[in-house]
Amino acid sequence: MSGPTPFMPTCPTPLPVGAQIMLAHGEGARLTRRLIREELLPVLGNDLLGPLADSATLPACDGTLLMTTDSSVVSPLFFPGGDIGTLAVHSAVNDLAVCGAVPLYLSLAFILEEGFDVGLLRRILCCIAAAANTCGVRVVTGDTKVVPRGAADGIFINTTGLGRLRAGVDLGPHRVRPGDQILVSGTLGDHGLTVLAARNRLDFKGLASDTAPLHDLVAHLLDCGADVHFLRDPTRGGAAGVLYELLEHGPWDIRLDESALPLSDAGRGACELLGLDPWFIANEGKLIAVVAEADTERALAAMKKHPLGKQAIRVGEVREGGMRQVVVQGILGAERVLDEPTGAPLPRIC
Amino acid sequence: MSGPTPFMPTCPTPLPVGAQIMLAHGEGARLTRRLIREELLPVLGNDLLGPLADSATLPACDGTLLMTTDSSVVSPLFFPGGDIGTLAVHSAVNDLAVCGAVPLYLSLAFILEEGFDVGLLRRILCCIAAAANTCGVRVVTGDTKVVPRGAADGIFINTTGLGRLRAGVDLGPHRVRPGDQILVSGTLGDHGLTVLAARNRLDFKGLASDTAPLHDLVAHLLDCGADVHFLRDPTRGGAAGVLYELLEHGPWDIRLDESALPLSDAGRGACELLGLDPWFIANEGKLIAVVAEADTERALAAMKKHPLGKQAIRVGEVREGGMRQVVVQGILGAERVLDEPTGAPLPRIC
Repeated sequence: MSGPTPFMPTCPTPLPVGAQIMLAHGEGARLTRRLIREELLPVLGNDLLGPLADSATLPACDGTLLMTTDSSVVSPLFFPGGDIGTLAVHSAVNDLAVCGAVPLYLSLAFILEEGFDVGLLRRILCCIAAAANTCGVRVVTGDTKVVPRGAADGIFINTTGLGRLRAGVDLGPHRVRPGDQILVSGTLGDHGLTVLAARNRLDFKGLASDTAPLHDLVAHLLDCGADVHFLRDPTRGGAAGVLYELLEHGPWDIRLDESALPLSDAGRGACELLGLDPWFIANEGKLIAVVAEADTERALAAMKKHPLGKQAIRVGEVREGGMRQVVVQGILGAERVLDEPTGAPLPRIC
Repeated sequence: MSGPTPFMPTCPTPLPVGAQIMLAHGEGARLTRRLIREELLPVLGNDLLGPLADSATLPACDGTLLMTTDSSVVSPLFFPGGDIGTLAVHSAVNDLAVCGAVPLYLSLAFILEEGFDVGLLRRILCCIAAAANTCGVRVVTGDTKVVPRGAADGIFINTTGLGRLRAGVDLGPHRVRPGDQILVSGTLGDHGLTVLAARNRLDFKGLASDTAPLHDLVAHLLDCGADVHFLRDPTRGGAAGVLYELLEHGPWDIRLDESALPLSDAGRGACELLGLDPWFIANEGKLIAVVAEADTERALAAMKKHPLGKQAIRVGEVREGGMRQVVVQGILGAERVLDEPTGAPLPRIC
């Protein structure tokens, strides 16, 4: 199998040949300020980040604020359909979105390894800026630390997000009831499979990460009037991880329908070849929605109207039962219990 | 020189022999939830963190919010007077405090290396909890990633803080004027020297990090009615770094008085022996205050009344002048320009 073509976004800033991050870029002195002023501000700058104070002053915000944090440690840094910078933005935005919040502000903290390529950093910054712009969030404050060679693997990024809860929204496991229907917004597993393939130089034609910001899809769904009880983006642990976490909150079982499991052609091929179960594989742009049974069709219709929900489908339901198990009904009718994920099939996929 | 006795805080949780962090602890599935429920929640739990949703819902807050972020990558993890967990809390709290905010909430994100000792993690969690408690801040949301052996050095911690701006406070370089006096709250250099000594197993008797939360000292200073123009905690880059950053905002010079430079006995000894200049060395619990000349004594008196400001002293002033230099007048009257810090004398000190 030949290796895939590396995915590299274009970036407007010309790259110096061989420039590398030095320990001094993290020392808080002149070189740190140059890195911030010459690299970060031109790409990410806005009126809130501009003052570069120790803390950013946020505009007044009516309503309830939500806060989330996420570190991105994905390897490789670039892969078909995405990169560590885009993931870092989407992960914070999506954690806010699935809690019913409109994402507003991000902090951005880098841990860089001495010797990291400045050109790569610029490309990542461009990806962060593009993703933040698409999501309508502003990077308001940041931090840069540099550790000696060998003390980190290239670059780690923390994003912490703030968002405003949409009026009248109440989402959470406390609202889930037997009879609720489980919907997913599209094909499962593409992100995890893509990173696995990129890391191991496997070439699955057409396989690409699904990383995407979910705030707009969530807005469509909540605005349609359906009685939505619970939303989650199935990242680490995959859909199975989300559903088992849900079962911690009530004495239910979850019944899934294998025939409804949405897979991309490339994803299906990769899963079959590698012997992986897509219910367990991470996604970065998919939504699991638990909705009242009576509103299933309305919710599906709303999701299908959005570009990120065209392939939305009902995959199962919540049932009475004290086993707290996720059971998959196979295509020929046989049932199997989906084990709760415990292992680490794919480290560093986000 | 014999090595110093390692500093290890006590922790109420019994330590299992040899338990280590596994990749699966970062996979978002059962082991991640166990780590959170069995280790993090008992130590850090509060009503806002408890729901463990993807985002924390914050209580309503009147007033202006400030946001700051900081990653802690210090090595070694424990040193006399402090540890990475305490630093992680203080760094966020202090960044808020010097901007005039009352610290309220923290997010907490770990990047752990596979094989990291669970007992050490517990100790660090206890230190985080103790520091947060002292500062009156709540950890409201978190994230845990695990990277394979060799991809990180033990543990990195990101804290992102939110605070509420104190009413009527306006601090910043825009308020600095020629004639303003420069005060420091106590001895300089202790933190950086302590970490350097601990890393290299040098034994300077009595040397200990000054890490401390500054919010209460700042409150004392602002409440005394003095016209305070600018506050900063001189961490990376030391006092010199802060002052050169200030000079980016106006065509001033800064004149420092070497004879006023406050040093601990151990700090003085370490600087002399190692040939280091304390103006450049990082602190984690010191305040630089720039105040209107007429209010110098009032500000000093207020600081001296606080346990963290007992050794507060005037060290210099802002002067007209287009050189944008920091000049130190020596004890015998000779002047020297303090070079702007560019290098990396002490990587990973915070």
